Amino acid sequence: MKITNALKIFSAVGAQAVLTEQPDLRQYLTGLQTSFGYVLSDNCGNTFYTDTRYLEAATAALKGTDIQVKQFQGPLENLLKGYKEVAVSLSRTSYPEYKRLENLGLKIVDSEKAFIEAMSVKQQYELDLIKKACEIADKAFTALLDRIKEGMSENEVAAELEYLMRKLGASGTSFDTIVAFGKNSSVPHHETGNTQLTFGDVILIDFGCKVGGYCSDCTRTVLFGNDNKHGEFIKVYDRVLKAHMLVKENVTDGMTGKEGDAFARGYLKKYGLDKYFTHSLGHGIGINVHEHPYLSPKSEHVLKNGMVFSDEPGVYFEGDFGIRIEDTVTLKDGKVLSLTNTDKSLTII
Amino acid sequence: MKITNALKIFSAVGAQAVLTEQPDLRQYLTGLQTSFGYVLSDNCGNTFYTDTRYLEAATAALKGTDIQVKQFQGPLENLLKGYKEVAVSLSRTSYPEYKRLENLGLKIVDSEKAFIEAMSVKQQYELDLIKKACEIADKAFTALLDRIKEGMSENEVAAELEYLMRKLGASGTSFDTIVAFGKNSSVPHHETGNTQLTFGDVILIDFGCKVGGYCSDCTRTVLFGNDNKHGEFIKVYDRVLKAHMLVKENVTDGMTGKEGDAFARGYLKKYGLDKYFTHSLGHGIGINVHEHPYLSPKSEHVLKNGMVFSDEPGVYFEGDFGIRIEDTVTLKDGKVLSLTNTDKSLTII
Repeated sequence: MKITNALKIFSAVGAQAVLTEQPDLRQYLTGLQTSFGYVLSDNCGNTFYTDTRYLEAATAALKGTDIQVKQFQGPLENLLKGYKEVAVSLSRTSYPEYKRLENLGLKIVDSEKAFIEAMSVKQQYELDLIKKACEIADKAFTALLDRIKEGMSENEVAAELEYLMRKLGASGTSFDTIVAFGKNSSVPHHETGNTQLTFGDVILIDFGCKVGGYCSDCTRTVLFGNDNKHGEFIKVYDRVLKAHMLVKENVTDGMTGKEGDAFARGYLKKYGLDKYFTHSLGHGIGINVHEHPYLSPKSEHVLKNGMVFSDEPGVYFEGDFGIRIEDTVTLKDGKVLSLTNTDKSLTII
Repeated sequence: MKITNALKIFSAVGAQAVLTEQPDLRQYLTGLQTSFGYVLSDNCGNTFYTDTRYLEAATAALKGTDIQVKQFQGPLENLLKGYKEVAVSLSRTSYPEYKRLENLGLKIVDSEKAFIEAMSVKQQYELDLIKKACEIADKAFTALLDRIKEGMSENEVAAELEYLMRKLGASGTSFDTIVAFGKNSSVPHHETGNTQLTFGDVILIDFGCKVGGYCSDCTRTVLFGNDNKHGEFIKVYDRVLKAHMLVKENVTDGMTGKEGDAFARGYLKKYGLDKYFTHSLGHGIGINVHEHPYLSPKSEHVLKNGMVFSDEPGVYFEGDFGIRIEDTVTLKDGKVLSLTNTDKSLTII
């Protein structure tokens, strides 16, 4: 019988029962992407309760594992009869849901720490899916560069990139693709629109795709033609890239997110660029495109081998231009290994 | 000064202050799609607190409206000083967040009903965006039918359709596109995969796109060639279509979701097909692809003019085939008006 992550979480939590409803956590336990269901684990095993939309597929997929599948016959109270204690992800449980459990006389325990610890350190099958998502994103981006032409809109470039990722086997995007031309690049999370590409524009593209429910995340900033007005851009690009590389060269397991962030922020500070680096260095990547650990000036999260996160320093000059250089990376044997790998040297297309 | 929805919600709630964090509700108030921020409304006006990623764009977009934009300087407690009462969307507030507000000595009021009532009845600008999303989806689907060829995978068909919607101006999909070939169509929410298209297959496609942050939702079931084994399919198709049309012909404002559902379910029951109709008839559509009102056998939601929802009866024969026919519709002057409009007569491509 195949052991799923449900047993791992149940053991780590140590409560009489663990009830999990959140889609991402449910996916971690079952390996399935569903929009409704509960996983209930206790000493006797694990049960995935879902509705008729998923029953047939879930039953087939979980055959031979330690999770049995049953049709959910509400109300939730029926599932919890006989327990004295139940663990839920507390910060993801609404106040009315909490009161509902409390009214059943249940002692309520928090399962969140167990999920964060388990999900942040990736297992081999998870790393393989993330690597695949990164490879597809790399290939698609490389192919995209040949297709970018003057006059195209940001939306058209995003459409091309998403199509390429899909055709290469991605099931979808990790998040809404950001394509920013010219001064739009100075908005860190620009909403991709109808701005048309002009000779000499900066192009910032932040993109990711999903494979088997796992995400990639990558940003590249390139120039569309050199109109010889890019002296400042080229100087700053070099510094952002150096900040990005310092993180890769120096981060090791056992450091905190804060220490990781400081390699990039400290370097940019030397050139007075830290005040334009207005966001965190990075975030964990897995089933969610933003998850534990976080690499920010205040983060005490400890970085461990097997974690996957982004290394994404960026600087933004309002109304002028912005530069962000981001890779999805993992820690392996104490070293940073980059999972997205398209060329980061200054590119003029 | 342009009046936003923030004033409407503040007035409807009637609390001293309304604090809104959830991305969809924040979008309703501000018109902006952001991944972080709080909208705080009180007697003196509305403030959108967000971070540096969105500050520049939000300030520009909300200039001249009744919402001022400020950089969020945590902690949240700072924003709530001086209030005795605050309204939040209770079912979307986690237990720890609730306790945090309670610990400030605040009386906590629920803003959810005000949001549901306001958001479920669409304003003209919202209808225009949904209509646009529906028109794009229609055009893309029509173009897609010419591109479907034997041997293509479900993923490839989904990629083509998403690309077409994007190129026509959509900002992305409303949800993961479902493409199901052959017996995969019997899984109501099939996970689009690598199954290849074979002559004679049923093709079920459930798809939607977003325009300006608003969704469309449509499903069509067609045959890929007629291998003369489709007698049963054709008979059932006709009945599902009739069930779909009965809803359109009979639903009017003032009915409940339950009454709407019954037109389809009652008709299918005559032919013993109701037991294969394993989900609800429909759901509201707007900023979220699933929102209020719901049309199900138990729904007491009252349907009103200006609401937008799906009409999607479906029947599923496990391991054999499934049929779902879905349009996004609105109620106008007491009549159902279809917003997705591609041909629903039996189609063999």
